[in-house]
Amino acid sequence: MEGDDGVTVTAVNTLDDAGPGELTFLTNPKYRELASHTRASALIVGPKLPVSTPATRLLCTDPYAAFSLAIVKIHGYRVHPRWGINPHATISATAVVGANANIGPGATIGEHAVVGNNATIYPGCYLADHTVLGDDVVLFPNVVVYDRCRIGSRVTIHAGTVVGEDGLGYAPLGEKWAKIPQIGSVEIGDDVEIGALCAIDRATVGVTRIGAGTKFSNLIAIGHGSKIGQDCMFVAQVGLAGSVTVGRHATIAGQAGVVGHITIGDNALVGAKAGVTESVEPGQAVLGAPAQPINDARRQMMALKRLPEMRQRLKELEVEVRRLRELVEKDGRPCDDGLG
Amino acid sequence: MEGDDGVTVTAVNTLDDAGPGELTFLTNPKYRELASHTRASALIVGPKLPVSTPATRLLCTDPYAAFSLAIVKIHGYRVHPRWGINPHATISATAVVGANANIGPGATIGEHAVVGNNATIYPGCYLADHTVLGDDVVLFPNVVVYDRCRIGSRVTIHAGTVVGEDGLGYAPLGEKWAKIPQIGSVEIGDDVEIGALCAIDRATVGVTRIGAGTKFSNLIAIGHGSKIGQDCMFVAQVGLAGSVTVGRHATIAGQAGVVGHITIGDNALVGAKAGVTESVEPGQAVLGAPAQPINDARRQMMALKRLPEMRQRLKELEVEVRRLRELVEKDGRPCDDGLG
Amino acid sequence: MEGDDGVTVTAVNTLDDAGPGELTFLTNPKYRELASHTRASALIVGPKLPVSTPATRLLCTDPYAAFSLAIVKIHGYRVHPRWGINPHATISATAVVGANANIGPGATIGEHAVVGNNATIYPGCYLADHTVLGDDVVLFPNVVVYDRCRIGSRVTIHAGTVVGEDGLGYAPLGEKWAKIPQIGSVEIGDDVEIGALCAIDRATVGVTRIGAGTKFSNLIAIGHGSKIGQDCMFVAQVGLAGSVTVGRHATIAGQAGVVGHITIGDNALVGAKAGVTESVEPGQAVLGAPAQPINDARRQMMALKRLPEMRQRLKELEVEVRRLRELVEKDGRPCDDGLG
Repeated sequence: MEGDDGVTVTAVNTLDDAGPGELTFLTNPKYRELASHTRASALIVGPKLPVSTPATRLLCTDPYAAFSLAIVKIHGYRVHPRWGINPHATISATAVVGANANIGPGATIGEHAVVGNNATIYPGCYLADHTVLGDDVVLFPNVVVYDRCRIGSRVTIHAGTVVGEDGLGYAPLGEKWAKIPQIGSVEIGDDVEIGALCAIDRATVGVTRIGAGTKFSNLIAIGHGSKIGQDCMFVAQVGLAGSVTVGRHATIAGQAGVVGHITIGDNALVGAKAGVTESVEPGQAVLGAPAQPINDARRQMMALKRLPEMRQRLKELEVEVRRLRELVEKDGRPCDDGLG
Repeated sequence: MEGDDGVTVTAVNTLDDAGPGELTFLTNPKYRELASHTRASALIVGPKLPVSTPATRLLCTDPYAAFSLAIVKIHGYRVHPRWGINPHATISATAVVGANANIGPGATIGEHAVVGNNATIYPGCYLADHTVLGDDVVLFPNVVVYDRCRIGSRVTIHAGTVVGEDGLGYAPLGEKWAKIPQIGSVEIGDDVEIGALCAIDRATVGVTRIGAGTKFSNLIAIGHGSKIGQDCMFVAQVGLAGSVTVGRHATIAGQAGVVGHITIGDNALVGAKAGVTESVEPGQAVLGAPAQPINDARRQMMALKRLPEMRQRLKELEVEVRRLRELVEKDGRPCDDGLG
Repeated sequence: MEGDDGVTVTAVNTLDDAGPGELTFLTNPKYRELASHTRASALIVGPKLPVSTPATRLLCTDPYAAFSLAIVKIHGYRVHPRWGINPHATISATAVVGANANIGPGATIGEHAVVGNNATIYPGCYLADHTVLGDDVVLFPNVVVYDRCRIGSRVTIHAGTVVGEDGLGYAPLGEKWAKIPQIGSVEIGDDVEIGALCAIDRATVGVTRIGAGTKFSNLIAIGHGSKIGQDCMFVAQVGLAGSVTVGRHATIAGQAGVVGHITIGDNALVGAKAGVTESVEPGQAVLGAPAQPINDARRQMMALKRLPEMRQRLKELEVEVRRLRELVEKDGRPCDDGLG
């Protein structure tokens, strides 16, 4: 700690918006300038980022973790409304709901569904027949879980997400499409968090799986039968086709897409907007469409920028070579002639 | 059939998960290895895919169709919950609902709406005033149909999809945007299936149309006034701008986008992530952004991989040509001089 | 006006579909042919677009604005159903709802929420605790607004959109992810219209802001802490990562993506499918992934089409230069030898 160590803070806020009595943070060097005239009382900053600031500095080896802990300590996590089991929820007689349930108006829980302890199910959610939820699950409004899907404990799913809809499974019948019943399901592991408005297809047969600890942003599409490992991070608008396998702790950045029946290895990184058409090795980073090892992709993107100039140079070179050839042929002849 | 022909199966399952008494299938050569140690009792396989397996082999000329039929035969299609007309549904007095309706709690049906026979409308769906649905329609939870849109018979729409919202129609008024009332509607043909969380704009005037038999995956955006033919297949996260025309039996792969006011011909194929900026001929396959005939696109992608190497070669060639020129000019002179 | 000036029209329709007594319009030269055999009674057209048509021509300097005004005049804007405050809506005792409220069945309004005058809240919407809505707001079915988010006056949000869900905020803890409470919120300015199924993250701390007058299409993802200026236009399936700043009156076309912590200037134009990785200057147009000034991007795309041919030319040039070098070295020697 550097500066006034008697400072007290009651809230965390941004460099821009923080005022007296508030704690702020600087993790991105881009915003260093803002730190010099922040009105915050204290600033969390890393040891490698020298900064001049009127605020008391809290030097932390991992400022992002410190900032995160400070928010937890000062603000805590969201407290959900308390509905108990709201009389306007529809819970079938054969459903089993655990202790301390918190189920909002307009939620519907189907036959033989099992909901663990401490569930918070916001208004408008639909749990179909034979769905199973672990303990401490939070479903924000209008989440839909299709029949027979299973969700682990401490899972949070944000508003509007759909789990277990049928995938695009049809057999061609001339030009028509004959629907293949999608008899599989979805299994979501413990400690998963899924953003808003994601669509996770059930498997045709077997399961679509999302491994424990994995985190999804919004508007993500997961095709039928894909299997995603533990502790992965999927950014918004990612799309996986069917039967994709993703290892542990892989990151798939925004708007990337992955074709069916391939494997993304453990700790792999798929860059934003990448179009992955071949399996990715563990630990490998890929970029581009079609995706390639990131250094290759960057070298190509760099070269592409020079392409119009290259084309010009190629054209000039052709002219030059033509001129040279004429020169050589002309020069050559007289020379030979001279000797002939 | 090859192997024990007295075998009985009661379920279809994947190569990995199938056990005794279960039927599995092999259509993708990639998974051949799995077939050799499957525990399934029987395996559907094509005649062109030699495979060693302990299971009884069912050789089928079209194994995918056979697999599909086996699922239908053994498992059948999803059986929906039975709500009758749930007392917690809100159905306006002027709506007309056909025989054998199955309408869940929290569904709302507006004034003058018409719902055909055997409708299954899951909880949380909203049918606005003057909407029309044919017979045997299934709307999964939280589907929203805006006013005056029309949906054919045997249509299935998955959870959260929105049909008939206003498109992005504004007239510029200096820097402001003046909203143009979107007075058109949407018409969805018979036997269409639409995935979860799709958004299908109503037309500004006239209709946005989705042809009979067409199938959509999830998170697809269709712009106002687009007209899609029969029996098309749209993969997840496809986006069509406004006033696009798509012919019969076209396939648009995942995350592809199509600009406004162009035509995609019958049986055309738009590759994954393609950005289509010009009309596509019937039967043509395109890829890339901007999209081009697939062979051209592939050749360019291949060439792009070699681009950094080409740049190096171009540089070396320039050096070589400079050296040659100097040589020719130097060689030439002495030669000429010698003769002069 | 050219033609029969006694004509009366009662509806606006497309060139294709308009019949007698209807008004149509021609703004895109592509459709000129259709105008020559339209059955419409009158046609709005610009002075620069000569057209032969049986309809009475209304020559307008800004035909798009005229068409827009004609729709407003003849058809007007959508009239919403009237629910008053429906008894099947759940409104908490501490919520404050303004005059003339129109709240559908199955809508839920949380504790201490404030809803301005003339609100239309369709069925299935959820306003969390401490949300604030201005006057004349329309929320179509199943819109979800998370706790403490604020929405201005005359805002329209289409079905299924989610405002204020948690962003992808986690601190790494080995391979695990520790959730950072997302204590910020979302502020949406006056006169904003948002399409269906958009997901707008709340800020981690501070606010995610959408400026007054901005218009969004469908399936758009906005990352936590992004700040969008006034009167922008975002086309379908756009994605912004976190902490992006967008100026006034910028246009972001379909399926474009923007990485975090950069700035898109006033009046900038981001082309369809662009992947923006660096800040964009005011007024600048960019295209491609990674995005570049539009003319550079187009030149590169053009050059890319020629790349396979360039590769061929480069190869031929190498052969030619090799031949020349041999010639020069061979020619040179005899020549020198001859003189030696």
